[in-house]
Amino acid sequence: MHSDAFFPPRTLLPFSVLLFSAFLFAAAAAKAEDGYDLWLRYQPLEQETRHQYRPQLRQLLIPGREQSPALNTIASELVRGVGGLLERAPAVSEHIRGDGFVLVATPQSSPLVRAEKLPLKGLGDEGYLIRSVKIRGHQGTVITANSERGLLYGGFHFLRLLQTRTSIAEVDISGQPRIGLRLLNHWDNLDRTVERGYAGQSIWDWWNLPDVLDPRYTDYARANAAIGINGTVLNNVNASADSLTPRYLAKAAALAEVFRPYGIRVYLSARFSAPVEIGGLTTADPKDPEVQRWWQGKADEIYRLIPDFGGFLVKANSEGQPGPQDYGRSHAEGANLLARALKPRGGVVMWRAFVYQQDNPEDRAKQAYSDFVPLDGQFDDNVIVQVKNGPIDFQPREPFHPMFGAMAKTPLMMEFQITKEYLGFASHLAYLGPMYEEVLKADTFARGAGSTVTRVVDGSLYGHRLTGIAGVANIGSDRDWSGSTFNQANWYVFGRMAWNPDLSAEEVARDWLKITFSNNPTLLDIGLEMMLASRQAVVDYMTPLGLAHLMATGHHYGPGPWVSDLARPEWNPAYYHRADRNGIGFDRTGDGSNAVAQYAAPVAARFASRSGVGDDLLLWFHHLPWDYPVASGRDLWGELVYRYDRGVATAQNLQDQWHSLENHIDPERFDKTARLLAVQAREAKWWRDASVAYFQSVSGRRLPAGSAQPSHSLEYYQQQQFPWAPGH
Amino acid sequence: MHSDAFFPPRTLLPFSVLLFSAFLFAAAAAKAEDGYDLWLRYQPLEQETRHQYRPQLRQLLIPGREQSPALNTIASELVRGVGGLLERAPAVSEHIRGDGFVLVATPQSSPLVRAEKLPLKGLGDEGYLIRSVKIRGHQGTVITANSERGLLYGGFHFLRLLQTRTSIAEVDISGQPRIGLRLLNHWDNLDRTVERGYAGQSIWDWWNLPDVLDPRYTDYARANAAIGINGTVLNNVNASADSLTPRYLAKAAALAEVFRPYGIRVYLSARFSAPVEIGGLTTADPKDPEVQRWWQGKADEIYRLIPDFGGFLVKANSEGQPGPQDYGRSHAEGANLLARALKPRGGVVMWRAFVYQQDNPEDRAKQAYSDFVPLDGQFDDNVIVQVKNGPIDFQPREPFHPMFGAMAKTPLMMEFQITKEYLGFASHLAYLGPMYEEVLKADTFARGAGSTVTRVVDGSLYGHRLTGIAGVANIGSDRDWSGSTFNQANWYVFGRMAWNPDLSAEEVARDWLKITFSNNPTLLDIGLEMMLASRQAVVDYMTPLGLAHLMATGHHYGPGPWVSDLARPEWNPAYYHRADRNGIGFDRTGDGSNAVAQYAAPVAARFASRSGVGDDLLLWFHHLPWDYPVASGRDLWGELVYRYDRGVATAQNLQDQWHSLENHIDPERFDKTARLLAVQAREAKWWRDASVAYFQSVSGRRLPAGSAQPSHSLEYYQQQQFPWAPGH
Repeated sequence: MHSDAFFPPRTLLPFSVLLFSAFLFAAAAAKAEDGYDLWLRYQPLEQETRHQYRPQLRQLLIPGREQSPALNTIASELVRGVGGLLERAPAVSEHIRGDGFVLVATPQSSPLVRAEKLPLKGLGDEGYLIRSVKIRGHQGTVITANSERGLLYGGFHFLRLLQTRTSIAEVDISGQPRIGLRLLNHWDNLDRTVERGYAGQSIWDWWNLPDVLDPRYTDYARANAAIGINGTVLNNVNASADSLTPRYLAKAAALAEVFRPYGIRVYLSARFSAPVEIGGLTTADPKDPEVQRWWQGKADEIYRLIPDFGGFLVKANSEGQPGPQDYGRSHAEGANLLARALKPRGGVVMWRAFVYQQDNPEDRAKQAYSDFVPLDGQFDDNVIVQVKNGPIDFQPREPFHPMFGAMAKTPLMMEFQITKEYLGFASHLAYLGPMYEEVLKADTFARGAGSTVTRVVDGSLYGHRLTGIAGVANIGSDRDWSGSTFNQANWYVFGRMAWNPDLSAEEVARDWLKITFSNNPTLLDIGLEMMLASRQAVVDYMTPLGLAHLMATGHHYGPGPWVSDLARPEWNPAYYHRADRNGIGFDRTGDGSNAVAQYAAPVAARFASRSGVGDDLLLWFHHLPWDYPVASGRDLWGELVYRYDRGVATAQNLQDQWHSLENHIDPERFDKTARLLAVQAREAKWWRDASVAYFQSVSGRRLPAGSAQPSHSLEYYQQQQFPWAPGH
Repeated sequence: MHSDAFFPPRTLLPFSVLLFSAFLFAAAAAKAEDGYDLWLRYQPLEQETRHQYRPQLRQLLIPGREQSPALNTIASELVRGVGGLLERAPAVSEHIRGDGFVLVATPQSSPLVRAEKLPLKGLGDEGYLIRSVKIRGHQGTVITANSERGLLYGGFHFLRLLQTRTSIAEVDISGQPRIGLRLLNHWDNLDRTVERGYAGQSIWDWWNLPDVLDPRYTDYARANAAIGINGTVLNNVNASADSLTPRYLAKAAALAEVFRPYGIRVYLSARFSAPVEIGGLTTADPKDPEVQRWWQGKADEIYRLIPDFGGFLVKANSEGQPGPQDYGRSHAEGANLLARALKPRGGVVMWRAFVYQQDNPEDRAKQAYSDFVPLDGQFDDNVIVQVKNGPIDFQPREPFHPMFGAMAKTPLMMEFQITKEYLGFASHLAYLGPMYEEVLKADTFARGAGSTVTRVVDGSLYGHRLTGIAGVANIGSDRDWSGSTFNQANWYVFGRMAWNPDLSAEEVARDWLKITFSNNPTLLDIGLEMMLASRQAVVDYMTPLGLAHLMATGHHYGPGPWVSDLARPEWNPAYYHRADRNGIGFDRTGDGSNAVAQYAAPVAARFASRSGVGDDLLLWFHHLPWDYPVASGRDLWGELVYRYDRGVATAQNLQDQWHSLENHIDPERFDKTARLLAVQAREAKWWRDASVAYFQSVSGRRLPAGSAQPSHSLEYYQQQQFPWAPGH
């Protein structure tokens, strides 16, 4: 008889056989690590840690919970979280009975908290305080706030302390969000497809709403509340007017009701032409009184169903969407039309600045600024203009958008993309924390040094109270929500940085790794290295040196730098790289499109300087000869190929690093991630090979010594077709 | 202080508070009953039952498992199943050590089994025997078969005995399938939409295959093997030729590899024009030698990747699909083209008979028969013609298809629909067991009395060895696979009846209820009543008295009996009901389309008789005046309204019955089902009201006394629009 890996050899029977049975049974009975729990994965901490925490977590007191769904929600999350992490649920009590209590209350709901006179004044409506206290001789922890929402965030922060194995023995933490509107944007359609979605279909089962409420809606709210997200735009910015019909408003209202105890408001993308399409009017002109009345009536109707409705997100006069310019009106006039309808109930309009015109010969990177900056001061005070992080479109790397800092009288809201339309879909590991950080920390110099994008977005630069940040969600019906475990980190870091833009990508990644996997130092070290290297790798193998928009048409899957025959010039990769026999890059200096002039003078000067701009953005701003010497000492051609090769090498290294962690990760998540990293390594090489083959054909240059020839001919790469690519 | 339902009153502290905490924690930690486990839900049996079984299930012996993925699969399923059901996993042993062994082996793999000389001769390749035995003085159970596949089915049958609390003390059971090809047909597209799918998107994540293998693929195979399904057609009959490209064949091959240990073969829908679309040929003419060579090459390519590939399913010259008639060739010539390519490797062609022509004025119910019966004898021996259960299209009730029994020389395969395109989508409870049973037990009289449809399909009537039954799957990415718990029963009963068409819908329903919920007698009684009443209810509130095809256009959601303006006559509900001031119904007697003549004489005579046909099919075959007296004593108009009312009443009763079971069902499944039953009751009334309003407007008759007026005007119902209805 022979043994194999699965069945133990006979000589060890019967003990090993029993072990085997027990193993099989345990494997079947144990919960598979399918990623569903996200950062609410309350699996038991290491034994020693559990034992340390337990005496500090004997009792939970949440006065007033009987009357409040929100407090009830906090109680249930804390019992669930502490119970899971410590394998022992705290007693929910009415009175402090000894050391180890956790008291969750506002000064209003608890005389004990009130007596402590804790400093809550500056914490606003969403902030909280977590502090070790001694009450009536007993040692414990107080989580307090000015509001139930604050308690909710404090409760989740407290759970995070446990999840990250932080001591709660002498704790004194206060937190409050730096930004008011912390929103997910779902580009989800009513047929459950998701534009640029790579993780299954929409989690909104519109058809069965409001009758059926998927338990997933609650878990979505929990996951978002845990990271501070306080609003969600349910439907695609390329909106159907049907979303505003009574039938669909009832569905949105059902979701709003699920989300409410978690402090999450519902918003809708509004189609500007809705008065015509579902209102029976002949125009959507913002100056038409009937149109104004229609929107007012619609807003009233919405607020009857959703009393805390957040407002509208609008994509207007952009990529074929209707808008005020169809009637000769400005973006401001269009935005104000909707804003006035929402104003009486406190709703806001988020008006997107992502515009570029088919018939506009101006550099696409300049058009949004040109359209919007002249309107500064014309927007109503409940309008916020939503600006993508860069001037083109969510590329792996862009300079910050020139509108940040350029509109003193208008609140500007950041729009990040969490889904990776241009960074390898759901399959590539690309931790976006460093990208968000790079943009947020960029200095606009709009009011001198220190005028960071963060200070534009948090309102402090120009003193705006209406502030916001949006992330285009990477959430779908896949069991793990985001198509891969590492993609979850992008949702997570977006939420954490939306709350506190000063956080570093690294510290958030470390928290996430601890919560998602374990506290193992090897895992944390290598995991962190992988995450922090990953986005630059994608830049390197897709769009190095400031190149952009080199992907295939439509679905955006894979390389297409050769594409130059599309109807609109700015849809073509060739428009962006401008490569020929002599050189490559888009001249945006004064000799070219002069896009640099849209930035404040110090920034403009830096971007306009070949040596000052930095090689990471070199070809975004400059058209240069192939033999131009870059900082590394290589010539431009050599540096281009070097960076492609570096990207491929990093992608391959990610695989090796992951495999070194096999003993530290559960089999289910290990295997799926390993398979995806193999896809990434393969596709990185494909991007590099196809791009190098193309640029070689244009430049006529030989590959640097040691750099491998592409595996196939350029024609081969050009012939690849992917009619069923997702997200399109 | 006040108590509420969730938090216990203070006076009971601290005991109840601890209980509450424990409850919250247990609720969080326990596996939610989300329906994912289907009939593989190995939750612990009642304590007494567990104790009875345990002494009989101490040891599991599966010799040879080290060398065989299939046996390994059986071992793991039995350990998991028994371990879960009895809360104690059996020891996996090499030798019998006492009473209570379960020995799973073929006579070849075990001398002990061989020595028992059990009667395996007639059990074929998939049959099995489960028998209580005494070996070397020890009492135990043997599961044996001629093949590993037989052991697999025997193993699942054994688990079913436990799940249904059947005694295994003195067991002697043999089983073998009556039908060879027991297949699911997935109408799944490469973009992950599912035609007529109402349970999310396709479970095939084509984009990420073959790199990523969702654990769900394995669970799909387990669930199917458990009910005897042995093949699956992965892609929609409205096929894309891309499914046959190397890229997509590699994806199909990856699925085939997952399914293989479970005895499940992969099949593909083939697009007849593939030689043109992906082969670069200018024709797909079956007589063209290049076309023949192309299909042979394609078959070779497939078998290199999938050595046990099952074959092709083809929808040709039907609803716009390409086919041999495009080249003046017959269905037989088309089918044989593909059959000859597959023949050397044992593949089959399943050629669908669902055809009707735009320019054919013949009664649509007659066209398939007219096209196919003259071809009897012309099909190669590895072709089987796949015929829908009725002559139109999966209506709530149709007579059996006249082709059954009419083609002595051609194997005919049954095509049932499991997804409920015409029976309320995923939301209505309609247990299809009684419908399958009604069709299978129908007597064609083709070779005299007893020539049932079952005997056509199982091959016994005309001595065919190639036999098959297909079910159009109701499976999607929803967590519960089928959109509701009760929909799972339709997948289940399809599999069970495909294995044994003599099973009654009732006994299968009883098994399913026990496995899915519990052994509670109240639950079983009421659950069974609900299931058995449900399909007739749908018939009553949608298409009573033999009416058919009265649904709205395109998506088929809701009533549309008034529709009469579609391009093709047979697309219009009015074509089918033919209602006017004087009467209603489709005359298919000799005075009308004479469709009755397609049936064998005794059946034809019965169908042609107004009094003999039975009221359930009355208007399918007869056009009758509104005052025609039916069997109940009512006139036709009164009976029509009566049946609509009866359907609504039953739908409402289903709700009441379900609510009476609240204490017997877990909260998660109880709540979702309750919500869906509310939808069904509402939509039943909508169907009834809209249909009655319409037929009233046509007949000009008053409602019978006691029957309520529709809630809205006919115009209201006609104006309802559902542009986002799923599955279309």
